Amino acid sequence: RTLRIGLIPGDGIGREVIPAGRRILEALPSSLNLKFSFTDLDAGFETFQKTGNALPEKTVETLKQECDGALFGAVSSPTTKVQGYSSPIVALRKKLDLYANVRPVKSVGNGDKGGKVDLVIVRENTEDLYVKEEKTYDGPNGKIAEAIKRISERASFRIANMAGEIALRRQRVRKTGAESIHQKPLVTVTHKSNVLSQTDGLFRETARNALAQSQYNSIGVEEQIVDSMVYNLFRQPSAYDVIVAPNLYGDILSDGAAALVGSLGLVPSANVGDGFAIGEPCHGSAPDIQGQGIANPIATLRSVGLMLEFLAEEKAAAMIYKAVDGNLEEGKVLSPDMGGRARTEQVVEDVLKRL
Amino acid sequence: RTLRIGLIPGDGIGREVIPAGRRILEALPSSLNLKFSFTDLDAGFETFQKTGNALPEKTVETLKQECDGALFGAVSSPTTKVQGYSSPIVALRKKLDLYANVRPVKSVGNGDKGGKVDLVIVRENTEDLYVKEEKTYDGPNGKIAEAIKRISERASFRIANMAGEIALRRQRVRKTGAESIHQKPLVTVTHKSNVLSQTDGLFRETARNALAQSQYNSIGVEEQIVDSMVYNLFRQPSAYDVIVAPNLYGDILSDGAAALVGSLGLVPSANVGDGFAIGEPCHGSAPDIQGQGIANPIATLRSVGLMLEFLAEEKAAAMIYKAVDGNLEEGKVLSPDMGGRARTEQVVEDVLKRL
Ligand SMILES: CC(C)[C@H](C(=O)O)[C@@H](O)C(=O)O
Ligand SMILES: CC(C)[C@H](C(=O)O)[C@@H](O)C(=O)O
Repeated sequence: RTLRIGLIPGDGIGREVIPAGRRILEALPSSLNLKFSFTDLDAGFETFQKTGNALPEKTVETLKQECDGALFGAVSSPTTKVQGYSSPIVALRKKLDLYANVRPVKSVGNGDKGGKVDLVIVRENTEDLYVKEEKTYDGPNGKIAEAIKRISERASFRIANMAGEIALRRQRVRKTGAESIHQKPLVTVTHKSNVLSQTDGLFRETARNALAQSQYNSIGVEEQIVDSMVYNLFRQPSAYDVIVAPNLYGDILSDGAAALVGSLGLVPSANVGDGFAIGEPCHGSAPDIQGQGIANPIATLRSVGLMLEFLAEEKAAAMIYKAVDGNLEEGKVLSPDMGGRARTEQVVEDVLKRL
Repeated sequence: RTLRIGLIPGDGIGREVIPAGRRILEALPSSLNLKFSFTDLDAGFETFQKTGNALPEKTVETLKQECDGALFGAVSSPTTKVQGYSSPIVALRKKLDLYANVRPVKSVGNGDKGGKVDLVIVRENTEDLYVKEEKTYDGPNGKIAEAIKRISERASFRIANMAGEIALRRQRVRKTGAESIHQKPLVTVTHKSNVLSQTDGLFRETARNALAQSQYNSIGVEEQIVDSMVYNLFRQPSAYDVIVAPNLYGDILSDGAAALVGSLGLVPSANVGDGFAIGEPCHGSAPDIQGQGIANPIATLRSVGLMLEFLAEEKAAAMIYKAVDGNLEEGKVLSPDMGGRARTEQVVEDVLKRL
């Protein structure tokens, strides 16, 4: 099988980590019978500055027509307001209907603060405040701006199903004897329905209904108001297995969870739709370290694994995770964000040799 | 001077901690020349169940006409959707135009995880998604619900001014020789304007303009996107002094910050308007421990201090903070959430004897 992969480095350190993603795909053993072809694609703030469009139509069309999956690096957010600029990753998620943003956060070795962590945040990826329907008008005392937060039954149902499937899959992997801090699958539904009774109320109710389906019988279901979710995430992170949340809460929770394992540079994500997945490291473009060759490639390498999982190549994914975990457990070849001194290049080499 | 204080215990442990608030006011030394009169007022889920209204008109009118300040306990959120019920504290904040929610989070002694913390979250308290303008309609694939997120220049400006004033006040207190981890006042503006360019963009721009006024010359101003704010809050909490945020982010950030100091049971808040303040512990009604007499009264006692600060009784406030810090530094009479065995009553006694 040949998988056709779009490579969208974007801005900043996106350009330093996406090549690492390509390298690990090329280094997978031939016994897997997997081949890859690559297409370089543009997006990001620099693309916007050159062409007036942060997400060229060509990028979207190539992904739709000629790719099975993709890797996305990062995009710079302009530090002041720039007319007409709008985040290409948010647009891409919607245009390809990548309705789930899956973000596993796992401590390897002793973890950092707060002990063992092995959870995954399943974030709705197409609606909520990310519909970006905003308007501004003049009020009696200055400007007033409004944004729409939209929650649909359909999107809430499918994201909760995705959370259910992921909880079952994690349980299956544990049954193969993989070490784990969890005994039993658990999905935690996060919302703020004590204030937003209709929107978050719909999310909560729909998610509960989805998870009450008989195929999810073996899964424990709990819920948490988003503010206490953040509190509990920090107090007892080991209690959580799968967390499902609307778009914005998922965004915030995944950065919060990343803080628990020492560095955003470790945390991968996949933007997942039906039959398509884009791997994307959770760190941003990191202008403070760009161009120095010291970006942590781990988040990208793990995102490659995640992308493969969702393209039904679980075996290849498992090999990548194992190689990455080996690097972290040994803890000798680490990038500066992890307290080490290795360069991006050296971390990649160390992981590749463990494949 | 006699201050007229409304007491609104609400539900759950609110009823166990608000009496502690009253007791510390009554125990203040007569040398302060402060007297208090108290009025008991109803609000909460139980009030709703009895009367069909979670926030009786009488409570609002009494606060407006006969009180200088108030203490609010907590309200239970129903675990399933209840027709017509709506959170009384959110309504109260709006009805009394208590536009700032001020939440100081401070580690005493060694703090808990992540080292020293001494920050205050200044949360806009009247708008954002808390305007609760929602609607639900039928879409092609099931229900769709929408909520309005509203950000105004006026509310953003006054909350940023409040943050500036608080930063200056904290700096003044430090100059009197109070021990502190901060050298220089800093205000961090939190937003998500990379996605919400109009609403959060307006908040960001207005806050920056407010803080650029000459009276705030000595204050450092930074900004953080809300997701990285949560990340950084956990990685380097000691870096933050004053954090100003729209309503919902402020809600989430303050629970996050509470996790850093060991217990929500320590974190106070004040809902502040022009000439009126309601002290409110940040913990909720805690149904799991209600009626057992073991609720931590510290958050309420500190909220009493905060209320007094905003009613221009800084000296009385400082005495309360000192007594509370004494209890925590000694660390002998602590409630169960802090790993101790003391009952609410005993913690209160221990603080009172330090006044
Ligand atoms: C860059 C930004 C638009 C994006 C988001 O908010 O989704 C990022 O924070 C992420 O989590 O992927
Ligand atoms: C109870 C709830 C409505 C409230 C809020 O969201 O403001 C609470 O979380 C708080 O922080 O005071």
